[in-house]
Order: sequence, then C-alpha cells, then structure tokens
Amino acid sequence: MNYPMIRYVLAWVLRVEGAIMALPCLIALVFHEQTGFAFLLCMLICLTIGFAGTARRPRETEIYTKDGMVAVSLAWLVLSLFGALPFVMTGEIPNYVDALFEIISGFTTTGASIVSDVEALSHATRFWRSFSHWIGGMGVLVFILMMFPVRSGSQMNLMKAESPGYNVSKFVPHVRDTAKILYRIYLVMTIVQILILLASGMYWFDALCITFGSAGTGGFGVLNDSCASYTPFQQVVTSVFMIAFGVNFSFYYLLTTRRARDAFRMEEVRAYLGIILAAIVIISFDTLRMYASAGECVRAALFQVASIITTTGYSTTNFDLWPSLSKEVLLLLMCIGACAGSTGGGLKVSRILIFLRAAKRGIRSYVHPHNVMKVRMDGEPVSEEQVGSVYIFLILYVFVFALSVLVVSVDGFSFGTNFSAVAATLNNIGPGLEVVGPMSNFSTYGYLSKAVLMFDMLAGRLELFPVLVMLNPDVWTKGANKGRKRARGRLRASRVAA
Amino acid sequence: MNYPMIRYVLAWVLRVEGAIMALPCLIALVFHEQTGFAFLLCMLICLTIGFAGTARRPRETEIYTKDGMVAVSLAWLVLSLFGALPFVMTGEIPNYVDALFEIISGFTTTGASIVSDVEALSHATRFWRSFSHWIGGMGVLVFILMMFPVRSGSQMNLMKAESPGYNVSKFVPHVRDTAKILYRIYLVMTIVQILILLASGMYWFDALCITFGSAGTGGFGVLNDSCASYTPFQQVVTSVFMIAFGVNFSFYYLLTTRRARDAFRMEEVRAYLGIILAAIVIISFDTLRMYASAGECVRAALFQVASIITTTGYSTTNFDLWPSLSKEVLLLLMCIGACAGSTGGGLKVSRILIFLRAAKRGIRSYVHPHNVMKVRMDGEPVSEEQVGSVYIFLILYVFVFALSVLVVSVDGFSFGTNFSAVAATLNNIGPGLEVVGPMSNFSTYGYLSKAVLMFDMLAGRLELFPVLVMLNPDVWTKGANKGRKRARGRLRASRVAA
Repeated sequence: MNYPMIRYVLAWVLRVEGAIMALPCLIALVFHEQTGFAFLLCMLICLTIGFAGTARRPRETEIYTKDGMVAVSLAWLVLSLFGALPFVMTGEIPNYVDALFEIISGFTTTGASIVSDVEALSHATRFWRSFSHWIGGMGVLVFILMMFPVRSGSQMNLMKAESPGYNVSKFVPHVRDTAKILYRIYLVMTIVQILILLASGMYWFDALCITFGSAGTGGFGVLNDSCASYTPFQQVVTSVFMIAFGVNFSFYYLLTTRRARDAFRMEEVRAYLGIILAAIVIISFDTLRMYASAGECVRAALFQVASIITTTGYSTTNFDLWPSLSKEVLLLLMCIGACAGSTGGGLKVSRILIFLRAAKRGIRSYVHPHNVMKVRMDGEPVSEEQVGSVYIFLILYVFVFALSVLVVSVDGFSFGTNFSAVAATLNNIGPGLEVVGPMSNFSTYGYLSKAVLMFDMLAGRLELFPVLVMLNPDVWTKGANKGRKRARGRLRASRVAA
Repeated sequence: MNYPMIRYVLAWVLRVEGAIMALPCLIALVFHEQTGFAFLLCMLICLTIGFAGTARRPRETEIYTKDGMVAVSLAWLVLSLFGALPFVMTGEIPNYVDALFEIISGFTTTGASIVSDVEALSHATRFWRSFSHWIGGMGVLVFILMMFPVRSGSQMNLMKAESPGYNVSKFVPHVRDTAKILYRIYLVMTIVQILILLASGMYWFDALCITFGSAGTGGFGVLNDSCASYTPFQQVVTSVFMIAFGVNFSFYYLLTTRRARDAFRMEEVRAYLGIILAAIVIISFDTLRMYASAGECVRAALFQVASIITTTGYSTTNFDLWPSLSKEVLLLLMCIGACAGSTGGGLKVSRILIFLRAAKRGIRSYVHPHNVMKVRMDGEPVSEEQVGSVYIFLILYVFVFALSVLVVSVDGFSFGTNFSAVAATLNNIGPGLEVVGPMSNFSTYGYLSKAVLMFDMLAGRLELFPVLVMLNPDVWTKGANKGRKRARGRLRASRVAA
C-alpha cells in the first residue's frame, strides 16, 4: 500500500474541508451568531493539519485500485470525524457520537437526524448540515481531483472508488476534465433551483439549504416539519429538481453536447421515470381518501415518491400514516434508488435492470439451452465481468442489510422500525417508518445501533466495495504489498490497454 | 414440448395420489368417521382419471430439461387441485380457495394454515394434511421415478426439476436407484421417530402426524397449540428429528456406506449445525427472563430454532412475544433454511456458503487483482456456471420476495406481518409473526394475497426455476419446440458426454 500517498490524499481532504468551513462562518457573521467562532476554530484545525500533511509531496504518486478504495474510505471517515467537531464545539450536539452520526448522515446525503428540534439550531449549524449534502452528493474526492497533482490513471482509481455505479461515466479522456464537467452541470442546476425558489418567495436561507439538500439528495431540512410548510409551487419545484438530480449525469452531458436523441434513449433514465410514474399512480389511488382534494393527494404522492426514490428524504406529509401498500411502495423505492451516475443512492436503477435481464436470461437458458445470450444495456452487451460484479454487489447488499437489521434489533424496536431504519441509512434516504418515521428521528437508538447505522450510511454512499475492501485484513498485510510490487508491470500494461 | 409425455406424467401423479388417499380412508374407518366417504370418492376420481391418462403410453418418452420443469410444476399443481377436493367434500373447509391453500401448504411442506380450530377437524382430514407433508417432503415425482418406465436421462430431468439444490445428489449411476436409496433413508428415519414417540407415551395418531410433519419439514399439527402440550422429552425428540431431516441426505448415504469421515467433513452440514448452535445461544440469552428456568428456556429455543431453520414450523411457545432480536434471528433462519438435498426449504445453507465465498472472492479481487480464485465447496471447485445459477437464484428470490410483500400489503396489515407472511410461505415454514404468528393463521388475508402466497409456496418448494420457466411465454410458443427438434442431436451428444 502506498501509505505516503494515502496520507497526502487525507491531508488534501482536510484542506478542502477547512476551506469550505469558511461558508458557515460567513453565515454566522450574517446572522450575528456566536457559533461562528466554533466553525472558525475547526476551520483552523483542519487547515493546519491539512497544510502540514500536504507540505511534502510523496515521491511515489501511483494509486492502484486497492489504494484508491482504502484512500476513499478513509477520506470519508476523516471528513466526518473532523466535520462533526463544530456540532460539539457549538454545544448544539454535545455528544460526539451523535454529532458524528449527524455529519456522516450529512456527507453521505442520508439526512437521518438525531436532532429533535431542528429550528433550535443556529443558522450556521443548519447551513453546515445542508452544505455537507451538497459536498457529499457529487463527492469530495471528485472535487479534489480537479486540482490533484497525480496522473490520470491514479485519479481514475480514486474516482472509480468514490462514484462506482455499474460503469464509471468518463465523458472525456481526462479524469480531471470529467470531474470539471460533472461539477459544472451540478453547479448550474443548483443555481437554477436556488433562483426559482427565491423567485417563488422562499426565504433565501431556506432556498439555499433546501437546494443543497435536493442537489445532493440529502434531506436535512431547516424547519421541524421538513417541507410541509412551503407553498404547493415550492413543493412541486423541489420535487422536479429532486427527480432531476436523480438522473444519470451522462444524460445532461449528452444534452449539452447536442446529443438529445442519445440522451432520451438511455434505458436507465426511461426506467427511472417509468418507476416514478407508476409509484405516483399507485400511491395516489391508495391515499386518495386521506386528502381534501385529488390535487393535494397527487402533489403529496409526487413529492414523496421523488424524495424517496432519489434517496433525498424530505417530506411534506407523515407518510408513516399512509396505508400499508403505499408504505411498502416507498420501502421498495428506497431500495431501488436513483440512477447510477447521479447524486442519489440505493441499488440504482441500472443495477435493477441488469438484475432483471440476467434473471430473464437465467430462465430463458432452460427454454433455449443452446442460445448464449448477452445482458444488454442501451443496446450494448454488458461484459460478464460487469454482470458478475453486479451480482456480488447484490449479495453484499443483502448480507449487510440482514446483519444490520439483526444487530439494531437489540434495542427492541419493531421489525418495521428496524428494517426501515437500515433501508433508510444503507440507501442514504433519511427517514424510515414507525419509530424512525418522517416526524421522528434516530436519537432513540443505542450506541451499538448508531454505530451500525453510521457504517451503513458510509457503506451505502461508497457502494459497499471500498468500505469492505478497507475492512479486509489482507489489505493491511505485508504480503499484499509485495504482490503489488510484482504485479506493477502487468498493471501498467493493462492500464495502457484499457 | 412433449405434450403427450406431460399428460402421461400428470396422470401418473393422479394414480399415486389416488392410491395414497386409501390411507385417510383407513383412518376414517378406524375412528368411524363419515368423512371417509369423501376421501373414498376423491380416491376413485383420481384413480379413474389417472388410469385413463396412463392407458396409452406416449411413443416419444424423451423429457428434456424444459419439459421436465413444466411437467414438475404442473404435477404439483394437479396434485394440489385434486388434493384439495376432500376438504371441500367433507365440508370441513367448504371454500375451495381455502382448501387449495391448505393442501398446497401441505404438499409444499409449508404448514401455513387457514384453519383456526384444528382439533375440530376429523382424524381423516388431519391425517391427510400431515401425510401430504410426508409425500411433499421427499417429492412426489421422486416417488414416481421409482416405477417410471422412461430412460434415465429423462428421469434425471424430472428429478433435477423437483429437487434442484445447487447440485443434484446422484449417489449411484441410475436415477431410479438413487430415488430408492433416498426413500429408504427417509422411511427408516420416519419409522424410528414414530417408534420413539410411541415409546415416550404419545398417542399413536399424534405420533404418526407429528412425525410426518417433522420428516417432510411441514408443520401442520393435530392440536391447536401445535406441540406445546407434549412432554419435554417428546419436544426434544421432535427437535432432534427436525434437525436430522434438515441435513443433506448425502450425509446419511455416506454414513450407510461406511464413509463416516467424508460425511462429517461436509461443509454444509457443519455450517448448518453451527448456525443452529449460534441461534440457540443468542435466543436463550435473549429470552432467559421470560421463562421459569434456564432448562425450559433452552428447550424452547432449541425447539423453535430447529423448527424454523428446517422450515418445519411447529411451535411450543408463542415466539411472536419474544424480544425483537430473537424474532429477527428467527426471520433470518427462515430465509437461510436447511441443507440442500434435505426435505427442508429456504435459500439452503450451501447457497449461503457459496454467496459468502463468492462475496469474499469479489472483495479479494480488488486486493489481489491478478489472482483468479475459484469458489470451493468441500474442497472441490464449484464451476462458474453453478455459481452463476446460484446468483440468478438470489436475484429471483429477492424479486419474488419483494413483489409478494408489495401485493399482499393491499390487505393493510403491518410490514412485519406481510414480510413474515411472505418469508414463511416462500421458504415453506408456516407461521410468521404478528397477524400470521404461531398462535394465529392465514385466514384473514384476502383472495389476492392468498393466491400470491400459494404461488410463493409452490415457487419456494420447487426452488423458483420450474415455476418461472412454466410461466415463460416462450415455453408455449411453437418456435421453442422447433428449436428443440433441431437441437435434439446436439442434446443427445451432450447427454452422452455427461
């Protein structure tokens, strides 16, 4: 393992984290809040350690797949460990474990909270919570890659670890340029949403925070009732933008490069919109009698479906009171998740499509035993290696899910609570059902359960592999590093070939 | 598709079903019950249709994989459609849908009931319910294979469809002989359990029925409290036999052929026993304060773990009142299930082992990208084709599970109820939690939900593929049959090679 390089990446993460902490300081200044000093202090700590760590550039800057995965996992951990400090220092979340839960929930764009009275928090703290969604949504490493002084192959390994999906969307040959394009699309869409919300009359602070939450598909609100007290128009705008941020960003790249026809042919995007439509129809019929008018009912269904499938987690209604069918549609949407290459979490629609096609192929292989069929996406055959890694993903997902539900059940809550708590954290949604429903929070869980749920949030955001690779003891043994040196020649060759 | 041959197989099934209906007639005679006439009438109907259908042997007796799957699926359907008749004719379950639910639950060894007062049923009816477990446990097709006048290759295709597992245990070159060995082991173990229960002082009728339920891992009891009123010794005996019937039958075959060392080296059996032990320990600690003595607590834990992991479904205690952790351990055991090649259901321990090893390999492939690793079982490498079909099984399992939970939620029960109802039927357990807990039954679900749960029971018992292949429209089109004729030459060749 290239330890100096990992140290270097982590220090860079702290530099960036220190820099962005200037924003909550600014907010504190605007609102004349004391909490600004806590953020200022944390900012200085991050910057000091960050600059100290990046002072000496490692001689060997190569990052292999394994190093990339470990670096990314550790980067997210470091980001969270330091990001939790302001909550403790301001005294607003005095318990460090709770503060860590809150900021991991922020960076992983989960939005699950342990705070019961959000409105009692200072503006700076609420801003920091929401802004962590925006940073976490596109990925902090992707951000750093724009200025990172290493070779493209190494950058690719970092990017692959942070935004895996079933294939990495590499629009242009250089990773750095891809990262720039991604952030440009992200920024433009964010600004447009802020402007529309401002034009609709929303208070500027709310407009900023709600937009950060939608863009990163996070879900921390600034009011206790999440989005219930915003106007119908503001709710519809938020719904539309949540859906838009859940679309594979390749779609927008194709649009901006005038390949609209290819964009609208993307099977994942079509399936994603189809699922949304179907879910809205089912829930609208199922909940019709609960609302004063059909319009209100459809609006609530639209908002909640958009919020859940994109794994954002805002709410305008207490969906825990909905009938069983609607709640189970939501649980299913939680696990399906958004498109690959978006800021959303979950299994991802493209994986679901591959599962369905692989299953269809599996059944057809009994009917036509001598036809060898390929799984296809957008007309292109998917390599068996990719299909295999999607299978492994499902196995790991099911195992992590089942074990997590088992462990959090020590706190004695109902199966519905435990299952939805894990679904809501592993898929980076936020609220679950029953005890962790949209009108409650995660504070009632014990420390062990909180630890498991924090792990689930990180594992879910990084799509399992990096975190599980980091936990594999083999990574840390000397043998593995020896093997790495021997394999270097072959690796170089394979990189060139790719 | 070889329609005449499928007709022939189905008629054979009815002949066998008619023949075994003689047993409940006998029981009715012993207890002087009027219900015997209903069974006699059904017996005559089955025998008439059965003999009529087998009068003319098809010219072409070849059965290909696809034909085998369709034949087996239809066989189980026919078996159930006719097996439900006595319940209706005796007037004890007057609604045909409920009767069908009850007998599908019987033949698939599920044990989920719609009857609230079991003790009100006649002895003949209760015997028929329990005996259906015994027949369904080892498989009715496997039974028929012992006398079936077709070639070994075709028999293999039927056997593979009925008792799939991850590899079919073919002890000896001839399928017929393998079937005989299986039934011999099954019969001997059944007789031993009956004798021990009789010696313990259990009433002979109970001893017979409880043994049929344990042997087939079914779960229909003869008393309203399932097994709670039997003596501690009888409960422990039943626990031990349930565990024994959940062991891969290859284990016993190895024992009888004096290869005890190989038998005890079987990784699946070891893992199965390890899981049972771990579950008993966790549940004992978790429920200790609920029982008068530690002995009682451990006995309840042993019985329930044995009953659930083997997918039998008997109960001695209302485990729905247990703490969340214990209930979730049970839910996990429901999905894990027993060993492949046993009479139990669920995912099967061998598949779980393959999942774990494939997942480990997936993670290690990032650490050692140039080591190609094989998934191994009992020291032998598992072919990638087999691993692939295990993956597909998981995908289908998760899809069927999720969709079933979604559909049954229209009845408005809680998530815990719906999830456990599907887990209990798809894995062929019987009782679930909450509304379908061990002290309740499935009668409160509506027709749509019952239909879904019946499908789940059949799909679970036949391990998904046969039922889903049958539902594939391609199977029924002419094109598929044309292809079959063309491929015949190649198939023959490949069969010889295998």
